[in-house]
Amino acid sequence: MRISELDTPFLLVDLDRLEANLDRAAAAARAADLKLRPHTKTHKTPQIAQLQLARGAAGITVAKIGEAEVMADAGIDDIFIANQIVGPLKIERLLALAERARVSVAVDSTDAAAPLSSASAQRGLRFPVLIEVDIGLQRCGVPPERVLDLVREINTLPGLNLAGLFTYPGQVYASRSENEVAGIAAYECRIMGDLARQVTPIAQVADRISGGSTPTLPHYFADCGLTEIRSGSYVFNDRTQIDRWAAKPENCALTVLATVVSSPEPGRAVLDAGSKSLAADLAPDSPGHGVLKEDNAALLIKLNEEHGFLDLSQAQLKLRVGDKVEVIPNHACVVANLFDEMAAVRGSEVVETWPIAARGKLR
Amino acid sequence: MRISELDTPFLLVDLDRLEANLDRAAAAARAADLKLRPHTKTHKTPQIAQLQLARGAAGITVAKIGEAEVMADAGIDDIFIANQIVGPLKIERLLALAERARVSVAVDSTDAAAPLSSASAQRGLRFPVLIEVDIGLQRCGVPPERVLDLVREINTLPGLNLAGLFTYPGQVYASRSENEVAGIAAYECRIMGDLARQVTPIAQVADRISGGSTPTLPHYFADCGLTEIRSGSYVFNDRTQIDRWAAKPENCALTVLATVVSSPEPGRAVLDAGSKSLAADLAPDSPGHGVLKEDNAALLIKLNEEHGFLDLSQAQLKLRVGDKVEVIPNHACVVANLFDEMAAVRGSEVVETWPIAARGKLR
Repeated sequence: MRISELDTPFLLVDLDRLEANLDRAAAAARAADLKLRPHTKTHKTPQIAQLQLARGAAGITVAKIGEAEVMADAGIDDIFIANQIVGPLKIERLLALAERARVSVAVDSTDAAAPLSSASAQRGLRFPVLIEVDIGLQRCGVPPERVLDLVREINTLPGLNLAGLFTYPGQVYASRSENEVAGIAAYECRIMGDLARQVTPIAQVADRISGGSTPTLPHYFADCGLTEIRSGSYVFNDRTQIDRWAAKPENCALTVLATVVSSPEPGRAVLDAGSKSLAADLAPDSPGHGVLKEDNAALLIKLNEEHGFLDLSQAQLKLRVGDKVEVIPNHACVVANLFDEMAAVRGSEVVETWPIAARGKLR
Repeated sequence: MRISELDTPFLLVDLDRLEANLDRAAAAARAADLKLRPHTKTHKTPQIAQLQLARGAAGITVAKIGEAEVMADAGIDDIFIANQIVGPLKIERLLALAERARVSVAVDSTDAAAPLSSASAQRGLRFPVLIEVDIGLQRCGVPPERVLDLVREINTLPGLNLAGLFTYPGQVYASRSENEVAGIAAYECRIMGDLARQVTPIAQVADRISGGSTPTLPHYFADCGLTEIRSGSYVFNDRTQIDRWAAKPENCALTVLATVVSSPEPGRAVLDAGSKSLAADLAPDSPGHGVLKEDNAALLIKLNEEHGFLDLSQAQLKLRVGDKVEVIPNHACVVANLFDEMAAVRGSEVVETWPIAARGKLR
């Protein structure tokens, strides 16, 4: 089947671009002697996780137990849930999942760790946990100066095995230059390396000092302080990654195929893709909600739920009702969460259709 | 089951508030002698559409054929797709759907109408279409001064039955006072009433002069120029409707139940609900991404995909890890599109769980 035969809106992944993105990240991780444990929240699709593992990924990262369950169903065995697990229902599911896959999770407080500790100890398990360190994002995690205290507290809890430390330098998305990105990566490495040395005498964490993001990916090196990175967005890239010097438009593998449904006057077209298929997320610097793959000067200036307002005034491209176009979105991860499936395409052909099996796994 | 036993994030609809919202809108439409054909994109849930019909709604409105198919599957018979239908696959599905339900659709150009005309004529049908009039939103639709020309063109196309005119005064969301909202409703009524009189000699449109939104709902009256309104958001309300003088916080029926998963310091808490469950849509005036039902001064100041950053500095409420709270979202329609089901609750009890059957019906 050809792309042009698909109904719209349809989510497309360009396999040539995807494979190049996967290869580039795998090479960067290898060059820096880092394990790559990609965050699969970006694609939520077991087939793509398998492509990452085939290129040497050392396990995967997910955000939710539901995502981990889907990936375990697909036979993936080493899964890190980079998120706090809170509540008895989740702990029960987590322990059930651990019977069929190697799973580790985040902790950042004894409040969150204690219920998992009890439940795990009751089953005679030592559940692998990684302490989340906050190096500036101010989301979850403990600040570096409190890590040693938390290590000592976790050490007193039964049923847990402190297996590593991790951080997420998400503040990189607020940086204003590529130099600043490099500086954040350097800071991350220094803090995490220092912590690894401080903690090692009282807990065996040295094998998993985990960090990383897509913008910081090119800025690591051997013995930088980390042993593992969890970059996610590099798989698809998007306008956010372009804004953060991590990609060019021609590296963007995920697009939304859309149809022009109305063109009330020249220079203006309305697409059948709005915030229900592109999400309302803004890019850090670039205006609007997306650009066309066919002509990057064609800008989606506004989204309603089912309508994309396309401004063609700066574009060469002319469009009329019925024409199909591909939109490069601001934020690929949330777009993949809005579709039930994606078409894997090569050139103008649809090669396969992949269910986005972990779409909507919110819990 | 009690709400507190649900895992999070979970979508909740408060039945007392929902029923009050449905009653209020039904009464407003009755008082203005208008048919209410609610836009079901807000809830995407056949059970709620049935509640609307039970209160006198004259059919329903949807945005997509996929939504119409779901509603027809639930036995709903009179469905207006308030959107341009472009592309041969969609036309085929539309004609198949028309064999089992009364369906009408939008047109705003002969480019879009011609393929439907041919396909419909081939089957010996006269498909009901409504011309979309643009009264200021600048999305789809023809401007008022071009309506008569389009009526004449549609009249020459076989297989179509011009059944009415419709508009959507979506610019109301940019208005800055309740007076301005009233002014937009008055303008809508005057323009559409004038057009109805101009068109009536050449096409039988007078029975379906359709308009409306939730903010403008209280501003219509008998013989105002419209015969039908398609308000949608009134079902749930949200922070956008509060900002547009259409609701108070206590009228908001849809919330996202979330758990505090981290509280790194007093006054700051992190919820397990982010843009993947609350969407990144902004409210017209109110800051942030939502407030807590329990304390409207508790503000979600930032969202990542799986994390809501809660600022409690202005709130009375104290929270700790494990506590559950309900978030009133900025934009209910897109939130309902992120969940597969919602819990219908009364007081603290879960009464039923409804599949959001038209969730993700993008085509």
